[in-house]
Amino acid sequence: MLDLQKTISAFKTGDIRALSRLISLVESRDSESLYLMASLYKEGAKGSCLGITGPPGAGKSTLVDHLIQYRRSQGKTVGVLAIDPSSPFTGGAVLGDRIRMQQHAADAGVYIRSLGSRGAHGGLSVATRDLVRLYQAFGFDEIIVETVGVGQTELDIMQLADTTIVVMVPEAGDTIQTMKAGLTEIADLFIVNKSDRPGATAMVTALQQMIELGEGRVRVQEHDRQHRMIQTSPTGGEEDTIWHIDVLQTIATKNKGIEEVWSKVDAHRAWRVTHPEDVIEVQNRRDAEFAALATEHFGRWLQEQADSTALTHITTQLHAGTLNPYTAVEKLYTHIGLKS
Amino acid sequence: MLDLQKTISAFKTGDIRALSRLISLVESRDSESLYLMASLYKEGAKGSCLGITGPPGAGKSTLVDHLIQYRRSQGKTVGVLAIDPSSPFTGGAVLGDRIRMQQHAADAGVYIRSLGSRGAHGGLSVATRDLVRLYQAFGFDEIIVETVGVGQTELDIMQLADTTIVVMVPEAGDTIQTMKAGLTEIADLFIVNKSDRPGATAMVTALQQMIELGEGRVRVQEHDRQHRMIQTSPTGGEEDTIWHIDVLQTIATKNKGIEEVWSKVDAHRAWRVTHPEDVIEVQNRRDAEFAALATEHFGRWLQEQADSTALTHITTQLHAGTLNPYTAVEKLYTHIGLKS
Repeated sequence: MLDLQKTISAFKTGDIRALSRLISLVESRDSESLYLMASLYKEGAKGSCLGITGPPGAGKSTLVDHLIQYRRSQGKTVGVLAIDPSSPFTGGAVLGDRIRMQQHAADAGVYIRSLGSRGAHGGLSVATRDLVRLYQAFGFDEIIVETVGVGQTELDIMQLADTTIVVMVPEAGDTIQTMKAGLTEIADLFIVNKSDRPGATAMVTALQQMIELGEGRVRVQEHDRQHRMIQTSPTGGEEDTIWHIDVLQTIATKNKGIEEVWSKVDAHRAWRVTHPEDVIEVQNRRDAEFAALATEHFGRWLQEQADSTALTHITTQLHAGTLNPYTAVEKLYTHIGLKS
Repeated sequence: MLDLQKTISAFKTGDIRALSRLISLVESRDSESLYLMASLYKEGAKGSCLGITGPPGAGKSTLVDHLIQYRRSQGKTVGVLAIDPSSPFTGGAVLGDRIRMQQHAADAGVYIRSLGSRGAHGGLSVATRDLVRLYQAFGFDEIIVETVGVGQTELDIMQLADTTIVVMVPEAGDTIQTMKAGLTEIADLFIVNKSDRPGATAMVTALQQMIELGEGRVRVQEHDRQHRMIQTSPTGGEEDTIWHIDVLQTIATKNKGIEEVWSKVDAHRAWRVTHPEDVIEVQNRRDAEFAALATEHFGRWLQEQADSTALTHITTQLHAGTLNPYTAVEKLYTHIGLKS
């Protein structure tokens, strides 16, 4: 058993083993993790979160590897979360090239942790957000969340990053076609990695065209929004309100283009400071997070009640097929006294 | 407003507009949908559910089109659910080639409905299961659930099908590499569509090798399981307990191989009847469904309580940033009296 108070104290002194233990607790999603997060949460904690996603084989790990090296050379500490939601059946995180990142193993200023889907349907993004907060509470200067793939779960996870990079390769044209909508909406920066391969320039052009289309749409929305808000805030030109998504080229294996990536990420962070989010958007996001955590906690509560008399009564009938799952839910809510 | 009792009555007489309205209600996931499902649920309802998935561009819609035609020629009614979880931002179902399926529009024995992700994180598979049950209650002989893509959400959805077909194309070798684990575990049958294209035979061989590897693993597990169960049930040879996954070739655009697909699906259904699921597995699945529905209902309850005094008190502080989301959840549970 984990002595939680003792571990939290050690965590606060910068003990990396304590961090590791608390990550496992948060990953387990049990009731104690809620208490832990409540006690460690810091409003406006430092440590910006950089999200990196893209199709498998885009060279994300190598890129992250060099992004870490660069920040370390500046004396900054880096926490990395590598998320692999693509393996729902085997569970656990199987990231083949994770081993390469072990070159940082001897460096106390770098911490890397892998996280895989464990059948936690939709719960992976909630767990990831908590872990980013845990990294922030630990005090990392830089936090990187890397996901494999460009599916729904990956897009959900990227919502929590302050800056999101989408990594493509010259020959990934097909992926653009299928993922177009999602990718442009989450990307703050595109990278065409492996750009010494044929087709890199064509890929850059394709991405730029896609961005222009997307920005045109955003500009119209933004224009509408400003028209609505003009009475309360007459400042700010139209051009100024939109972040211009760039496309950079890198060759991660040759450490090329890394400095440019960080410099663009820093520019985006500076832009965010001068362009704070809409108050309503912030509130909506807080509401959504509260609802997600509260709902997850209900699932946990339900599991902990499995052996209680009332629940056993319901599940016995459910197992026998004499009670359908919908009526079972109605019975449960009557029992716990939560009525609409 | 929908007069629910009247619509349910019309639904029971086979009114297709009533079906359409009830689908919209279930899709909306509001509290009434729980009541509706409870009142329509039939244990062991007829209408087997055939799941069809595979990467975009595999020709699934054309295939489904011809699968429908074949069953219609046998006088069977068919309900189709086309799920597109790949578009989380735009919402709604945008299935470009859905129009082609309109050729069945004049046929009262075919009903096709599209369903897209509306930010219902992880809720899409719950909604799909309900809709399959609604189709069953309506009395379709054959129910087909088609998903676009092979991500986590699609794999979750395919769990509810009685028989799952994974559709590949000759040149989809890369997809196999990345999706290997998930695909072999959900597929009861593989189809190499567009098999007049080069590489079809190589693709069939690659899939067969993958299946053999997978079956080897299952056989070991099955052997272990039988050893455990030998006291209670000494019947059944080891070979007999495993379904052998086949690889069929089709050219959907030329209506080739369709009969073989149905014949293999029928064989799988017959096999399922003689190989009922493990009692524990059935109970676990029912528990999981109950937990998913009960948890979803909590989110609904929370939303309906948004304007209640207690919740307003919490969200005001949450919005102001004076209360963190974790402590907010603790406060909520104290208020509603659900303690671990």
